[in-house]
Amino acid sequence: MKIVVAYSGGLDTSVLLLWLKAKYNAEIIAYCADVGQGDELDGLEAKALSTGASKCYIGDLKEDFAANYIFPMIQAGAIYEGRYLLGTSIARPCITHDMIKIALAEGADAIAHGATGKGNDQVRFELSAAALAPNVKCIAPWRDAEFRKEFPGRAEMIAYAEANNIPIKASMKKPYSMDRNLLHISFEAGAMEDPWYDATTPADTDMYVLSVSPEDAPDKAEYIEILFEKGNAIGLRHENLDAILTELGDVKSTGTQDGYALLSPYGVMRVLNLLGGRNGIGRVDIVENRFVGMKSRGIYETPGGTILLAAHRDLETLVVDRESMHIRDSLIPKYAQLVYNGFWFAPERVAIQALVTETQKTVTGEVRLKLYKGNVMQAGRRSPYSMYSEAVATMEGGQEEAYNQDDATGFIALNALRLKATARQGL
Amino acid sequence: MKIVVAYSGGLDTSVLLLWLKAKYNAEIIAYCADVGQGDELDGLEAKALSTGASKCYIGDLKEDFAANYIFPMIQAGAIYEGRYLLGTSIARPCITHDMIKIALAEGADAIAHGATGKGNDQVRFELSAAALAPNVKCIAPWRDAEFRKEFPGRAEMIAYAEANNIPIKASMKKPYSMDRNLLHISFEAGAMEDPWYDATTPADTDMYVLSVSPEDAPDKAEYIEILFEKGNAIGLRHENLDAILTELGDVKSTGTQDGYALLSPYGVMRVLNLLGGRNGIGRVDIVENRFVGMKSRGIYETPGGTILLAAHRDLETLVVDRESMHIRDSLIPKYAQLVYNGFWFAPERVAIQALVTETQKTVTGEVRLKLYKGNVMQAGRRSPYSMYSEAVATMEGGQEEAYNQDDATGFIALNALRLKATARQGL
Amino acid sequence: MKIVVAYSGGLDTSVLLLWLKAKYNAEIIAYCADVGQGDELDGLEAKALSTGASKCYIGDLKEDFAANYIFPMIQAGAIYEGRYLLGTSIARPCITHDMIKIALAEGADAIAHGATGKGNDQVRFELSAAALAPNVKCIAPWRDAEFRKEFPGRAEMIAYAEANNIPIKASMKKPYSMDRNLLHISFEAGAMEDPWYDATTPADTDMYVLSVSPEDAPDKAEYIEILFEKGNAIGLRHENLDAILTELGDVKSTGTQDGYALLSPYGVMRVLNLLGGRNGIGRVDIVENRFVGMKSRGIYETPGGTILLAAHRDLETLVVDRESMHIRDSLIPKYAQLVYNGFWFAPERVAIQALVTETQKTVTGEVRLKLYKGNVMQAGRRSPYSMYSEAVATMEGGQEEAYNQDDATGFIALNALRLKATARQGL
Amino acid sequence: MKIVVAYSGGLDTSVLLLWLKAKYNAEIIAYCADVGQGDELDGLEAKALSTGASKCYIGDLKEDFAANYIFPMIQAGAIYEGRYLLGTSIARPCITHDMIKIALAEGADAIAHGATGKGNDQVRFELSAAALAPNVKCIAPWRDAEFRKEFPGRAEMIAYAEANNIPIKASMKKPYSMDRNLLHISFEAGAMEDPWYDATTPADTDMYVLSVSPEDAPDKAEYIEILFEKGNAIGLRHENLDAILTELGDVKSTGTQDGYALLSPYGVMRVLNLLGGRNGIGRVDIVENRFVGMKSRGIYETPGGTILLAAHRDLETLVVDRESMHIRDSLIPKYAQLVYNGFWFAPERVAIQALVTETQKTVTGEVRLKLYKGNVMQAGRRSPYSMYSEAVATMEGGQEEAYNQDDATGFIALNALRLKATARQGL
Repeated sequence: MKIVVAYSGGLDTSVLLLWLKAKYNAEIIAYCADVGQGDELDGLEAKALSTGASKCYIGDLKEDFAANYIFPMIQAGAIYEGRYLLGTSIARPCITHDMIKIALAEGADAIAHGATGKGNDQVRFELSAAALAPNVKCIAPWRDAEFRKEFPGRAEMIAYAEANNIPIKASMKKPYSMDRNLLHISFEAGAMEDPWYDATTPADTDMYVLSVSPEDAPDKAEYIEILFEKGNAIGLRHENLDAILTELGDVKSTGTQDGYALLSPYGVMRVLNLLGGRNGIGRVDIVENRFVGMKSRGIYETPGGTILLAAHRDLETLVVDRESMHIRDSLIPKYAQLVYNGFWFAPERVAIQALVTETQKTVTGEVRLKLYKGNVMQAGRRSPYSMYSEAVATMEGGQEEAYNQDDATGFIALNALRLKATARQGL
Repeated sequence: MKIVVAYSGGLDTSVLLLWLKAKYNAEIIAYCADVGQGDELDGLEAKALSTGASKCYIGDLKEDFAANYIFPMIQAGAIYEGRYLLGTSIARPCITHDMIKIALAEGADAIAHGATGKGNDQVRFELSAAALAPNVKCIAPWRDAEFRKEFPGRAEMIAYAEANNIPIKASMKKPYSMDRNLLHISFEAGAMEDPWYDATTPADTDMYVLSVSPEDAPDKAEYIEILFEKGNAIGLRHENLDAILTELGDVKSTGTQDGYALLSPYGVMRVLNLLGGRNGIGRVDIVENRFVGMKSRGIYETPGGTILLAAHRDLETLVVDRESMHIRDSLIPKYAQLVYNGFWFAPERVAIQALVTETQKTVTGEVRLKLYKGNVMQAGRRSPYSMYSEAVATMEGGQEEAYNQDDATGFIALNALRLKATARQGL
Repeated sequence: MKIVVAYSGGLDTSVLLLWLKAKYNAEIIAYCADVGQGDELDGLEAKALSTGASKCYIGDLKEDFAANYIFPMIQAGAIYEGRYLLGTSIARPCITHDMIKIALAEGADAIAHGATGKGNDQVRFELSAAALAPNVKCIAPWRDAEFRKEFPGRAEMIAYAEANNIPIKASMKKPYSMDRNLLHISFEAGAMEDPWYDATTPADTDMYVLSVSPEDAPDKAEYIEILFEKGNAIGLRHENLDAILTELGDVKSTGTQDGYALLSPYGVMRVLNLLGGRNGIGRVDIVENRFVGMKSRGIYETPGGTILLAAHRDLETLVVDRESMHIRDSLIPKYAQLVYNGFWFAPERVAIQALVTETQKTVTGEVRLKLYKGNVMQAGRRSPYSMYSEAVATMEGGQEEAYNQDDATGFIALNALRLKATARQGL
Repeated sequence: MKIVVAYSGGLDTSVLLLWLKAKYNAEIIAYCADVGQGDELDGLEAKALSTGASKCYIGDLKEDFAANYIFPMIQAGAIYEGRYLLGTSIARPCITHDMIKIALAEGADAIAHGATGKGNDQVRFELSAAALAPNVKCIAPWRDAEFRKEFPGRAEMIAYAEANNIPIKASMKKPYSMDRNLLHISFEAGAMEDPWYDATTPADTDMYVLSVSPEDAPDKAEYIEILFEKGNAIGLRHENLDAILTELGDVKSTGTQDGYALLSPYGVMRVLNLLGGRNGIGRVDIVENRFVGMKSRGIYETPGGTILLAAHRDLETLVVDRESMHIRDSLIPKYAQLVYNGFWFAPERVAIQALVTETQKTVTGEVRLKLYKGNVMQAGRRSPYSMYSEAVATMEGGQEEAYNQDDATGFIALNALRLKATARQGL
């Protein structure tokens, strides 16, 4: 038997790797995805091999994640339950997609993950796999009573690791769980298990990773201008962009257009994360409804995604037809629910995406935003496809060519017709 | 002929009043609604009579507006095109409702308003009237070519007023149009007719009325706690509430409950407006789609409404069932469109409201928010109807009574079944 | 331990009763609902007691089923996947509701049912129970591997019954499964497991229960007129109604109104079933999507329900406002899915029902239908709340009071505005 | 000035042509579309020229109409208000599209049509034109008070025609209005203006054009089998297809595939119309809601379309994923409303169509239907993309590979979780 195991090098997945190897008497292939979580991946392969894997793949998915998952989701205007930008949800199908590719190439019988039986990630992982490779088995040790019995707590895992010579870092376990990638970081459990607990206080300052608090952000606003093409951010303009790129290190502009530095999707996300983060943008504290049926409380930092979503909608209002936008908007709760629940590769998500893509043909243009202490303020938008007509909209006279005010009389009269008929029903 | 005319005492409606009286040889009854716009209404009756009205009614709708229009709309989570809180839209049916009541009581043949032929307000006004009194005629002088010819500009109106001894205030006309009430103030036209124009700059500081800019807000955050009952805010807790009520002058608490000062809907809005305003909360700059077919650009200040909407949703996430909330959410674009387009009294808005009301039975509890320089930060929520269960949600072990992790295996397997069948179609 | 068991007196539930008693060493209370399935229920109690039950309840739910389940569902216009009238789905919550009432009154620890692990009924049964009595356990022996092992086929059940002196009827097992109640009868499995199999041929004539085939129906059409009040059928008019009531035996008119014989909901269903059945109405053959993830093929006879649904919509078109009906219609797929999936008692079904109820206020009036060899033909509708206005609709001239044709010019112009703006985007 | 006028050769459009020529002192180009209405178009050009046109175009749109309008609409499952198959609605954009093409090629300033100011057709015509050629003016003489004054009735039109030597046929005017094309024929006005009027009686037998009544249809059923590819009907199988093609005269098969005669979209519609018509299929009598605000009553014959829509959905149930179909279904009311209201070329219709197209990739296969006296009976469906799995669906044992019944336990438990939490709220 051959199993591809999702592996991070940490205690949990190391234990899992070895335990699976023993239980199934299997060849284990370790897999680790880089979706911008910022972990050090050097040395991971060696560690995996020394832990018992026969091979270790590290998938660099940073551009794939930004271009083929985050960006289409932004086009859909996706936001779960009005507030969650789906940072964890959208990474799962991307990772599973690559892991399945390797499982198929390796002729593996199964893939395995370390997600618990209570969360959404197990579902996202396994539904993605089902859609991509229906004949590859999924193994979830945390839903294996045997595994749970062997490892009732962290102490037993450490003991198991030591007994098996798995190198473990002497790191303090955080009192909460985290998930980080290019789009966001999430925090759950710990003190947050009380929904009344206030996580904005200085006591929690240590927890946040991607952003300063609005209180700690600079006293001076900064501007960012974003260039879109067909719904995708392709360029940025900022007075200190060179310095930002230097600071980031791994992002380079690929050219310029209309005064904007062109950037890859990953590059755009990186710059916006830096800007959002230093200006205290994108923190939310929510109670959310998990697909598995319970409510949970989570805290998220999504600095760049918050800016990008705001910018994208702002441009849309200028260039997308009213009814197209309203229909797309009416599908946002459904679309977001699909992403959240793990149905990225389901045919209904693909069908809705086709509708969304159709609405993005004209979403080309510029958006200017002012970033200040947690605020993303609209400060202008323009486009060659602008449907805004000053001649039509102006309250000034003399424009009867573009808009004849008398038309409103008939328009209202016919819209009123059914209301009058209803009134005359006398109820 | 008897006409009830929407009258504010300003130049436009004064001219209109007299012009209608002459054109239709009609008895004119002036009507002015107080929906919290903050105008001085003393002396208005005398002015109306001296301008030519036979009577003048002033409707105090402040509580009605808050309780029967703003609050049900908040329950629906209404937001137009993702950003506009419908401040102007929701006031129109309230005003028209009262005006129609008077028109019917007076046996008037028609009602008249001063809205232009390009905007949404004419539609909201006339559709509300059609639904409430289908046999009362609506007159819209700005859609009367004769009126427009007589008054091509402001100068002709001033001349007409002077010629007819209509007292006019020597006020400077603002370079933009405004509409203010208890929920918000809007700004349109002028420099804003260029969607690229940045209205956040110091040059525009003068324009804003209900709020300071985030930059000018205090450096120290303040907390507000809101008590809800069945979806309505009924009480507030704040460390300086007494001082705030003294500052407001016209709001008194009606009692206390669980440490909250009970307030009427109007009282809640007034306090939240003050708090939101002084913390730079609730400004938006949007391009929106009017019902009459064009895009327009508007800037809004909705300080209290922004806080209230955020608080309401935050409590809902704790106490409303997932699927109920998702269905309600999927109707928000439609509901908001109905309010925006003037269909408040249409049967379909009433039908959706019945669904919304059904979802609000458990929306009772407390929300704590932190207000800081434009930010409304979630800082805790609790309720006797909380559906959040720590026993179920916790990642800690030993809770198999409340949630059996093995159940997830079957749950995922059956959700995956159709995805596997789709994959096997081979497309 | 005390268990209430769904019991029909047939082989399966008799075996189940005794097996549960043995396995759990439990007191067993038998429960049988009469939802109009037409079974002989005399002697059932004695049989249950002799099989091992301590008590046997028989719930007469025929009126409850018609009034509180079928009728509200008809108001919603519910139809699953465009064709299935939800005959089985809607009976489950009704039965479970009564069974839970008894379980609570008896202080039972659990309820048990004989539905298999592949179908929808287990879900409907258990979700209804969860919503009504979250602390009562549900037992599903067919999902108990022990039970399945003990009874791999019908032969083992017969042997078990004989060994335990359970009286079994020497009936031939049908080659397909059936479910019958007041609303319909369903057929599944057997030859129908091939979706290409043609079930309309004479070979299948024996199978159908509630209706003749269109070919075998009378050569002469008959008329039925239905009187509705607020969306519910309350009376019928037919030239031979007396003879029909005599034939039915268990239905009596409770009075007359406007020439209609008033009937209870159950009475209405009985008469319409007879009429539909003898005219070959209401057969459908569909492939449907089960909630548990697979497609299945079913054949249904819903004679009365097909007539009632058609009549109800026909009246609605005359008396319900366009936009209200369109919003309700857009929720039909969701509502039908909820009923199908077993979420009758879920808060989201209740919320949608509130919207539906709001739309039914004016659904009062008469519908005339012509029944002929499978056809339900519209033959007239009228109502005191009719919104149809001959004065408005007529193409004849001279009606400008009611409808001014010139209004259409402005109406079209403003509806065209955004289309022209889109065209000018040049894509 | 140059005007393209929609022209049929009848009295109305002949008068209109000449009147427009006089009023606008314009060059008139006559345009007539052949969308399968079955009119004799020979001699039309000569008549147009003799009436005063400078040119006459006759557009043969029969294939275009079937392939690019009817078929995509069938894919969407479109049906207006649950019953109307949109026969008139869908022809208007097709006709306008061709007429606009000619107007642009001719450099015309305007197009004109003979639709009245009360109906939907004026809207469909003008909105289509606005979307396709925003700068071409639309002229609607029936909304011109001058025209209405000159022609208050038919007598004045006849007099005008005679005075101007316009040749008119001495035909009796029908007491109702009709609109016919490849998809349907509609009847309005006359006796039908009373919604209680029963149009199924022998008195109306003369009126119907495309079908016999169910009573007059043959006593023997006939079968038709339809071959679909990606949602489009491409072939038919019938025991007498050759005879049918001979009878039709203008339809030829283009080849065979799997025993089916391949036919063009127009050919498919022609054959299905013949079959539906002779079997009494596709008559409906409805009260519908017009876009211009009133209810009207119409009677429709849609023989082939009724068969095609039923066949298409039947195949979909076998090959389209459940959730994709449900999402598409939830958009049917909106899509149908868009087609009905004239928004075929609006971006939102195009966006929904993109979603629909995505769902049709697997809609390839065969459907067998039995036609009998008004009934379209499902008699089997099969497809290489069938998602129906006998191994999964069967109630027989031993299939645990394909479907493990125990999975249902976890599936139900997690679906029940939120219902239990709701129950525990205690409301």
